[in-house]
Amino acid sequence: MAESPEVDKMLADIAEDLSSGAAELGLRAINIYRHILTTDKRGLSAVKDELAAVSIKLINGQPAMAPLVNLANAILQSADKAASLEELESAGLEAADRFESRLCDSASRIAERVSKLVPSGEWVFAYSFSSTVVSSLLNARAERSPHTKLFRVVCTESRPSLEGRKLAAMLASAGLEVTHTFDSAMGLFLPNCRVAFMGVDAVARPGIVNKVGSWLLALACRELKIPLYALSGTEKFVPDDLLFSFENHERPGSEIWDAPPSGVRVVNRQFELIPFDWISGLVTEDGVLKTEADVEKYVDALNLHPALEQLALAQ
Amino acid sequence: MAESPEVDKMLADIAEDLSSGAAELGLRAINIYRHILTTDKRGLSAVKDELAAVSIKLINGQPAMAPLVNLANAILQSADKAASLEELESAGLEAADRFESRLCDSASRIAERVSKLVPSGEWVFAYSFSSTVVSSLLNARAERSPHTKLFRVVCTESRPSLEGRKLAAMLASAGLEVTHTFDSAMGLFLPNCRVAFMGVDAVARPGIVNKVGSWLLALACRELKIPLYALSGTEKFVPDDLLFSFENHERPGSEIWDAPPSGVRVVNRQFELIPFDWISGLVTEDGVLKTEADVEKYVDALNLHPALEQLALAQ
Repeated sequence: MAESPEVDKMLADIAEDLSSGAAELGLRAINIYRHILTTDKRGLSAVKDELAAVSIKLINGQPAMAPLVNLANAILQSADKAASLEELESAGLEAADRFESRLCDSASRIAERVSKLVPSGEWVFAYSFSSTVVSSLLNARAERSPHTKLFRVVCTESRPSLEGRKLAAMLASAGLEVTHTFDSAMGLFLPNCRVAFMGVDAVARPGIVNKVGSWLLALACRELKIPLYALSGTEKFVPDDLLFSFENHERPGSEIWDAPPSGVRVVNRQFELIPFDWISGLVTEDGVLKTEADVEKYVDALNLHPALEQLALAQ
Repeated sequence: MAESPEVDKMLADIAEDLSSGAAELGLRAINIYRHILTTDKRGLSAVKDELAAVSIKLINGQPAMAPLVNLANAILQSADKAASLEELESAGLEAADRFESRLCDSASRIAERVSKLVPSGEWVFAYSFSSTVVSSLLNARAERSPHTKLFRVVCTESRPSLEGRKLAAMLASAGLEVTHTFDSAMGLFLPNCRVAFMGVDAVARPGIVNKVGSWLLALACRELKIPLYALSGTEKFVPDDLLFSFENHERPGSEIWDAPPSGVRVVNRQFELIPFDWISGLVTEDGVLKTEADVEKYVDALNLHPALEQLALAQ
């Protein structure tokens, strides 16, 4: 339990949200820190402890969602320098604002790059749900864009949470023609697609962690010679250890089969790792990264706050 | 509508059954012919016409289920020679009995071969639902078998009909340890498996038609160097044209998403073609077939009754 019921409620809402992508959850988590910084007046040390404790709960509630790690890190780093409650509030809010701008700025710069990768008149495949993929495809289609493209999208359900339906609904409501099917049917539709896009939950030197099914998608795209781009702001880069612990996260089997018969163990793992050489590129706000070496400088520059170091061990 | 409400009911039950495999449906369809042959006394020509009409309805209700084609073919061929209603009944029932014996005999001879392919102490992957896969795995485990093996099974749901749950339940109820997950998670579990098995709905020279997802399974097995065997009695061999028309069969999109938003087209294709060189072998009652050439002699020997020739064109 956090110190305030409002914070507990916001943490629970994020932990239970299985249909939002990593960037979207990052934006929502910012409000938790804003709430604590502006309402908790128990004193400098108590609020710093609360920020650290809430950060761990936030990240443990949605393991593999890397923007939560980098948001928490930015807030905790800013808190270290504060010598008074007022300084803590102003430094923390400034860090929150900066992180919010960074997320929005990443999304818009990625969308510009993606426009150039979408071929007019063709079918495009999109997997799972990612706000970055949605904003990129809508931007490619938008008439105000310098690269307006007319294209159609195929997407799949993304069992067990079916967040692919959210992707389909958002693209269709913006006027895109969308064909939807179940995940294992991707092999029937991919041969008609000229390019495929997926979101990203976390990135480090070993590769990309994303929703389960991304490995099969990457394998099928490689077999069919369809370029597959992963879209990710650099706020999704994490230390290598954290990436491996993220990948192993499990959710309750009941989300797949609520009452399996005796003797059937239902396993609900949500994430899997895709090596860089299986994709055509990682589209970031800084450009299209292609190799482990491209990613290395970002990962090396990460400086995890001591309060977050337990994450890699705990999971 | 068939001539009898009982026959209509039996046809509808088979058409609506989305969780049974091809061999299982073949066994159930035999009873439709037995019913007509023993109860329809309208005269030789009327009953012959009824057998032909019911055959087309039966196969159109479950396209891609090859044993239905070969059962219908055997019955119609036997009917051609009959010069009286009595001859029709006795020749038809004999053909039905012969087909039933053939299905059961195939299953048991395939099961003997599969026993030798299951490694003791290892994980085995099984996809979709197939009565041939179930009987083969249960035989491999059975104590009376000369090749008793102790092994564990991983299987997946098989969206949208979830017939993979039936597979899991049947294997678990026989004492096998079963791990179950969603289809797109196969990439997480296959690396721990030493062999994979799938059923077959139809076979011809171009390859094997089976439940959608089989292509991704075959691709993943090839990538991970896991032997993948398709299990099929030769009663699943069909002419090449029919195989292609089977593959294109579509079911209602509402079985995937009952109320999609406007602008989202939901496509529910059920079957896909896997070329022979993507699998390690097709295990039949006659042995393990490996190439198009091995299959050719069976396909060449098929002699489709003229009443069934419309099937390849109709779909």
